[in-house]
Amino acid sequence: MLKIRSLVAAIALASSVSVVHALDALPTKAPAPADNPTTTEKVELGRMLFHDPRLSSTGTVSCASCHNTMAGGEDNRAGSMGVNGQVGGRSAPTVWNSAFNDVQFWDGRAKSLEEQAAGPVTNPIEMGMKSWDDVVARLKAIDGYKHAFHKAFGKNSISKDNATKAIAAYERTLITPNSPYDKYAKGDKSALTEQQVRGMTKAVELGCTSCHSGAAFNGAGTFQKFPVNSNGFFEAKYSFNDDKGLAEVTKKKEDEHLWKVPTLRNIALTAPYFHNGSVKSLDKAVKLMAKLQLGQDLSDEDTADIVAFLDALTGEFPKQKMPTLPATSGTTFNK
Amino acid sequence: MLKIRSLVAAIALASSVSVVHALDALPTKAPAPADNPTTTEKVELGRMLFHDPRLSSTGTVSCASCHNTMAGGEDNRAGSMGVNGQVGGRSAPTVWNSAFNDVQFWDGRAKSLEEQAAGPVTNPIEMGMKSWDDVVARLKAIDGYKHAFHKAFGKNSISKDNATKAIAAYERTLITPNSPYDKYAKGDKSALTEQQVRGMTKAVELGCTSCHSGAAFNGAGTFQKFPVNSNGFFEAKYSFNDDKGLAEVTKKKEDEHLWKVPTLRNIALTAPYFHNGSVKSLDKAVKLMAKLQLGQDLSDEDTADIVAFLDALTGEFPKQKMPTLPATSGTTFNK
Repeated sequence: MLKIRSLVAAIALASSVSVVHALDALPTKAPAPADNPTTTEKVELGRMLFHDPRLSSTGTVSCASCHNTMAGGEDNRAGSMGVNGQVGGRSAPTVWNSAFNDVQFWDGRAKSLEEQAAGPVTNPIEMGMKSWDDVVARLKAIDGYKHAFHKAFGKNSISKDNATKAIAAYERTLITPNSPYDKYAKGDKSALTEQQVRGMTKAVELGCTSCHSGAAFNGAGTFQKFPVNSNGFFEAKYSFNDDKGLAEVTKKKEDEHLWKVPTLRNIALTAPYFHNGSVKSLDKAVKLMAKLQLGQDLSDEDTADIVAFLDALTGEFPKQKMPTLPATSGTTFNK
Repeated sequence: MLKIRSLVAAIALASSVSVVHALDALPTKAPAPADNPTTTEKVELGRMLFHDPRLSSTGTVSCASCHNTMAGGEDNRAGSMGVNGQVGGRSAPTVWNSAFNDVQFWDGRAKSLEEQAAGPVTNPIEMGMKSWDDVVARLKAIDGYKHAFHKAFGKNSISKDNATKAIAAYERTLITPNSPYDKYAKGDKSALTEQQVRGMTKAVELGCTSCHSGAAFNGAGTFQKFPVNSNGFFEAKYSFNDDKGLAEVTKKKEDEHLWKVPTLRNIALTAPYFHNGSVKSLDKAVKLMAKLQLGQDLSDEDTADIVAFLDALTGEFPKQKMPTLPATSGTTFNK
């Protein structure tokens, strides 16, 4: 279901809402779908699969290559680099807190983490596998995966469906709570600086949080047109209109330039910005969003305040175990 | 110093040595050079640097991309894939237990882990940085690295020298003790199967362990000609002679096709085999080594026994913490 809020409604909402009312701390657990309850065994299997480059044709690209779990959950590149040095057209979204998105991918075309996980593996410029059957055949040749799937899903259970379920279960553990903002939301008023509080107030007053709403600042399930206010100069400079967003999938006129509202959590760590990563710095991104979405020319001071607030959305990254990937004995992964 | 043992000496040694005498368990700690004693702070910094793709021009290739610390310490590829999909001519050696090599790289051209660590970063087809000055400039722009270098080396200490020292200190912790062979060497005679014991005896009798000697089965510091016994068919089939080994560096006739003796530790995990990764399976590699180095035609049974023994050299991989890579706030790594 697409929820599209108009700019008018957004501004009306912003001006009527008090700042305090909007404060939601990030949950420390993510809900799981009924057919894929999170279990330790699935999470451990998913942790391996997520970091295993043998899920790519060349054996060089894992999910984590573009969604770096040691960093901000992406690769700090405009377009990600898949197999054989190929570069994609969209900037990798962060995997951190992706469990709180109702839809996945920039264009929101996947309804779940499970559905999303299936995509990049067989995308020719991402992980480049010819088919999931080929992936399953590779996994079946690795004893350690037989055991890990058995523990997670039962005997002889290596399949696309279970692999993507395990990856999704792992992703649901990738949550970054306890940002300065979360501490503030829970009552520690010293957790934000005065500038950050000013920035938060301005972000709400301007209307930023009308779309970027909720604890994950992603208006979960919300789609929005971008740019709302056409501006030939910026559209040309940053090639914003080359990619038609959701319409690339649906081929519908009304879906042109419609995008999932991305999370603002850890936004300071995930430069460059926008769907095509064309804007390198957060202050420029904030100014452009104010101009193109809200019709506002932000002063440098207001921009700095909002950037300071966005910095307060950087959470605590949980200490993670490095998985040990199961091996084939005496042979390569692509015999 | 190059120690070259002739085939004759090797066989003489093998036939005079009892199997029991040759058993050395892998040490659990690696010695460090006087000017780079291992400290926790250096190891933690090195762990970050080793896994940080921002040490490559594209931000896509870290040391761990080709020397995968979640797996057998390499990438299970013939030639590794560096920046922009470029493929190198040699197969990545394992980083596990590399602390026990007296020399590094296939051609042994680096005398220490510190010296080795400096190489790939500026190799145009590996990590592709234009210079270490560029690497240092990138690191200096990242606050978290300022702190981590400070803790490891003192104030304002970001430099090529200290970065490679930290990486080497981390690598010295990458040790896989307690293989079945190690347990056997320490007295647990049930740790090896009968077939593995047969394979061990055959490996010694044949002369394998004359070069692949010592606890790491790498004759630390030993160089050897490969192939010793010229065989046009196999040399052509596997392109063994295209790469002149040490002579590619020294340009000396006597160094042609001279290679560092690689470790046999975890060899079952590091297919494909040989300097160019041209041989996909361990059984084929064993047969070829017997033929080309020792002039022996191994039976399938003897080959299977030796492969079973080599399987017993797979050690325990220590549980590792995943590093959290320090971030630049609101900007990309390549502004």
